[in-house]
Amino acid sequence: MPPSAAASPAPESRPAIPEAGSAAVSAPVPARLPDLADRFASRTEGMTASEIRALFAVASRPEVVSLAGGMPNLAALPLDLLASEVAELISRDGQVALQYGSAQGVPLLREQITEVMAAEGIRAHADDVVVTIGSQMALDLVTRIFCDPGDIVLAEGPSYVGALGSFAAYQAQVRHVAMDDDGLVPAALAEALSQLAAAGRRAKFLYTVPNFHNPAGVTLAVARRAEILELCRRYDVLVVEDNPYGLLGFDGQTYPALRSMDPDNVIYLGSFSKTFASGLRVGWALAPPAVRDKLVLAAESATLCPPTFNQMMVSRYLAGHDWRGQVKSFREMYRERRDAMLGALSTYLPAGCRWTHPDGGFYVWLTVPEGVDTKAMLPRAVRARVAYASGTGFYADGLGSRQLRLSYCYPTPERITEGVRRLAGVLNAELEVLHTFGTPDRAATRSVGSGTRRGPQTPSPDTT
Amino acid sequence: MPPSAAASPAPESRPAIPEAGSAAVSAPVPARLPDLADRFASRTEGMTASEIRALFAVASRPEVVSLAGGMPNLAALPLDLLASEVAELISRDGQVALQYGSAQGVPLLREQITEVMAAEGIRAHADDVVVTIGSQMALDLVTRIFCDPGDIVLAEGPSYVGALGSFAAYQAQVRHVAMDDDGLVPAALAEALSQLAAAGRRAKFLYTVPNFHNPAGVTLAVARRAEILELCRRYDVLVVEDNPYGLLGFDGQTYPALRSMDPDNVIYLGSFSKTFASGLRVGWALAPPAVRDKLVLAAESATLCPPTFNQMMVSRYLAGHDWRGQVKSFREMYRERRDAMLGALSTYLPAGCRWTHPDGGFYVWLTVPEGVDTKAMLPRAVRARVAYASGTGFYADGLGSRQLRLSYCYPTPERITEGVRRLAGVLNAELEVLHTFGTPDRAATRSVGSGTRRGPQTPSPDTT
Repeated sequence: MPPSAAASPAPESRPAIPEAGSAAVSAPVPARLPDLADRFASRTEGMTASEIRALFAVASRPEVVSLAGGMPNLAALPLDLLASEVAELISRDGQVALQYGSAQGVPLLREQITEVMAAEGIRAHADDVVVTIGSQMALDLVTRIFCDPGDIVLAEGPSYVGALGSFAAYQAQVRHVAMDDDGLVPAALAEALSQLAAAGRRAKFLYTVPNFHNPAGVTLAVARRAEILELCRRYDVLVVEDNPYGLLGFDGQTYPALRSMDPDNVIYLGSFSKTFASGLRVGWALAPPAVRDKLVLAAESATLCPPTFNQMMVSRYLAGHDWRGQVKSFREMYRERRDAMLGALSTYLPAGCRWTHPDGGFYVWLTVPEGVDTKAMLPRAVRARVAYASGTGFYADGLGSRQLRLSYCYPTPERITEGVRRLAGVLNAELEVLHTFGTPDRAATRSVGSGTRRGPQTPSPDTT
Repeated sequence: MPPSAAASPAPESRPAIPEAGSAAVSAPVPARLPDLADRFASRTEGMTASEIRALFAVASRPEVVSLAGGMPNLAALPLDLLASEVAELISRDGQVALQYGSAQGVPLLREQITEVMAAEGIRAHADDVVVTIGSQMALDLVTRIFCDPGDIVLAEGPSYVGALGSFAAYQAQVRHVAMDDDGLVPAALAEALSQLAAAGRRAKFLYTVPNFHNPAGVTLAVARRAEILELCRRYDVLVVEDNPYGLLGFDGQTYPALRSMDPDNVIYLGSFSKTFASGLRVGWALAPPAVRDKLVLAAESATLCPPTFNQMMVSRYLAGHDWRGQVKSFREMYRERRDAMLGALSTYLPAGCRWTHPDGGFYVWLTVPEGVDTKAMLPRAVRARVAYASGTGFYADGLGSRQLRLSYCYPTPERITEGVRRLAGVLNAELEVLHTFGTPDRAATRSVGSGTRRGPQTPSPDTT
C-alpha cells in the first residue's frame, strides 16, 4: 500500500497529554501527517499486501467456506496434556524458560531436531542447526545473508508466496523454473542454469519445496533428485530445500531429503508449524558451518534469540510424547480432507479444468479453462461464499491468472465438498458469460506470460 | 567471523544415509567444504560477533562475577501463578493460541499496550501498534523499511549494541551524537544536523534511548526533550525512541515519552522483556500509520506473525494480575543492586575513574584512567573472575576504549560488591604497570577518536 493510501482517521493527531511542570507540551505538533514517501528504503517498493488481504474480512465470515488459507488444523492436539506440560515447564524451569537464550537456539531442542530430520535420511549434528521463528524467519535470514539487490534466485513456478515475499524484501530477482506432476523439471533447470551462465551470471541459490509442494501439491520424483543436485553442483549453485510438509505423506511415505544426498551444498529448512503447532513459531535451518555462522549473526540482529519458552515447550513435547503418533493423526485427518476435495472436484467442476493430486500436504493446484481469470473471479467467488488463493500471488512474474490454489487442510470434509460445489457454480457462470458474449478483450491478452506484470507479494498467514 | 574461520570438525561431511532403491546416493558428495566467501551478500561484511562472545564460555563460569550481561533478574516472578495461567490458556484457548495469527499482533494485546504506554503520557490507538518479537525485531524492521545502504542514522555515543548490529546489517552509517549526564546534548545534535544539511544529506532517523540509557546509565533531561524534538522537526528527521527501561525508575518516576510530545514524528519502541519476561520475546512498535503499514508488511516477510501463544500469555498477565505491582518489585530489586554497585565503586575504584549514577535501568558506564584499554584488559579481568562489556562495542566508530559497561541487574548485591572489588584489583594492577613502565606505545594512540576503527557488533543476549 502506498503511504498516501495509509492515512487513517489518525488517533495519532490527538493532542499529547500535558506534562505538569515540563516544557514538553510546547513542542510543535503540526496537524498534518508527515509525507514519508521519500524516506522509505528502496526495498519497500517490493513490499505489497497479498491479494487476498483485501477480501480477508469478508472471506473469514463463517458463511464463507475458505479454501484460501494454509492454517493447519489443530483439532487433533491433546490440549489438556499440553496444558499440564507447559505448567510444569513454568513451575520447574521458569527461570530459564522466561529468560533470554542463545541466538542459535536451545541445545537440547537442536539435538531433537536432528532426530526429527533422521526420518528423511538426514544425518546432521546439532551444532549445525539454527532454531528460527518459524521457517519463514529461516527463509528471511538465508535471503539476507546471500542476496544483494539484483541477485538472482531460482524457484519453482509457482512458488511459496512467503518465499517470494522474502526475496522481494531483499530485492532479489526470481527466475521461475517449470514444474510438472513430478515436481521441478530437470531439463528446465538445466536450461535456466546454462542461460544464466551464458550471460555471465550465477543464481545465488535454487529455492525448492520438494515434498507436497505449496501451492502446486506435487512432489519431486525421487529419480529427479540426484539429477537436480548434480546440476546445481555443476553450476556451483546452492540449494535451499524448504520442507514443512515432508512428514505429512498420506501413506506414511517419506522421501529422501535433498540434504541427505548432498550435505555440503544444501541448506535445509524445517518447521514444527504443520506437525505440532504453528502458533509457537518454531522452525529451523540446517546449514553447512560457514552458512550457519552467518545465519546465527543475522538472527541476533533480527531478534536477539528465539523465544526460549517456545523452544523448551517443543522440546518437552518431543521428549515426553508420541509425536510420531500425533503426526500420523494429522496425516489421517488431512488425507480424509484431501479425499473429500478430490472427490468434489471430480463431481462438480466443469470440463476443461485440471488439477493436481497431492499425496501429502495441504494443497491442490487448479487450472481453469482458457478465458477465466482467477484473480478477477475472486470477488464473485466470495459473494458465492467460497474463497481461494488466486494463482498470480505464487509467481514473481505475473503468471498464474488461469490458476488457483485450494487448501483442504482446515475445513471439514463436508465444508470442503460444499466449497468446491460453490466454486463450480461460480466457474460455470463465468464460462456461460464467456460462451454467450465471447471472450472479452482483456481475456484475449491472458495467454501464458502475458499477465499483468507485478511484484511478488509478501506472505500472509492466510495464504501460507 | 570470516567464513574461513568457521570450518568446524564438520559433522556435515559424514556420508549420507544410503536410500534403498533410490538413485540418491550416486549424487556427488565431494569431501571439500564449499568456499562460500564469494557468495554472501555484501551486508554480511558488517556482521561480526560481539567481543564478549569469545569470552562467554569462560565468563559464564559460576566463579566469575559477570557484570557484562543485560539479563533481567526474574527471581521476583510468581512462577506458580504463571504456570496455572498458561495451563488455562492452553486448555481453554489452545486452538487460537497455538495457531497462526495476524502479522500486526493480537488485537487485545495491542489495546493493553496502549494502556502500558499511557504511564508515560502516550495517547495512542491500538491500530498503530505492531507487536514484534522483542523490541529488537522492531529495530530491525524500522531499519529495514528506512535504510538503504549508505544511509545515515544518528545515534547517541555510546549506543545500544543491538541497534548498532541492526544498522550494520542494513549497511546504514552511524553518526554518533555526544551525551553528557543529562543525556543527548542538543548542541551536539544541532551541529550534526546542520553539518549533514550543509553536505546535502539528511539522516533517516535519530535513534535514542532517552530513559536509563543502555549502556550509559543516564536519562535525557526533560528540559531537553522539546528542544531535541524541535531540532529533528526543523531538519525533517524522524525520531526512533527506544524505551525498554522507562518504567524502571528507582523512585517510581516516569518521564514524558518523546512520542507523547510529537506523535507524528516519533516511532516508539517498547518491550516486555524488562518488565515481565525476556524469554517470551514480546515487544512492540508504535508508529504513524504510513510507517505502521510498512512495518506490518516487513514483519510478514520476516516471520509471518509473532507467536500467538506468547502474546496471549502476556495479555492474560496484564489483564489478570497486578503488573504495576510486579514492576514495582523489579524496581526495588534493581535499586538495591544499583546501590550496591555505586557503593562498591566509591569504595574500591582507584582515583581517576569516573562513572554515571543511574536512577533507573540496568547499567553504569565507567571511564577508566588514561592509558588503560578496557578491551585489552578484559581477558585479565576474566582471569581475576570478573567480566564486563568493554566500551568499543557500543560505538560504530572505534571509540570507547577507555570505557566499559557494568550491569547490576542480575547478580546479588554481595556478588556485585565482590565483582567491583575484583575489577578494582585488575585496574590497580594495570595502573601499576603503566606507572612502572610508562605508557606503552599503543596507549599513546588511544586519545578520543583515535581508537581502532572497526564495524559495529551484532548484539548478543549477554550484552543487551
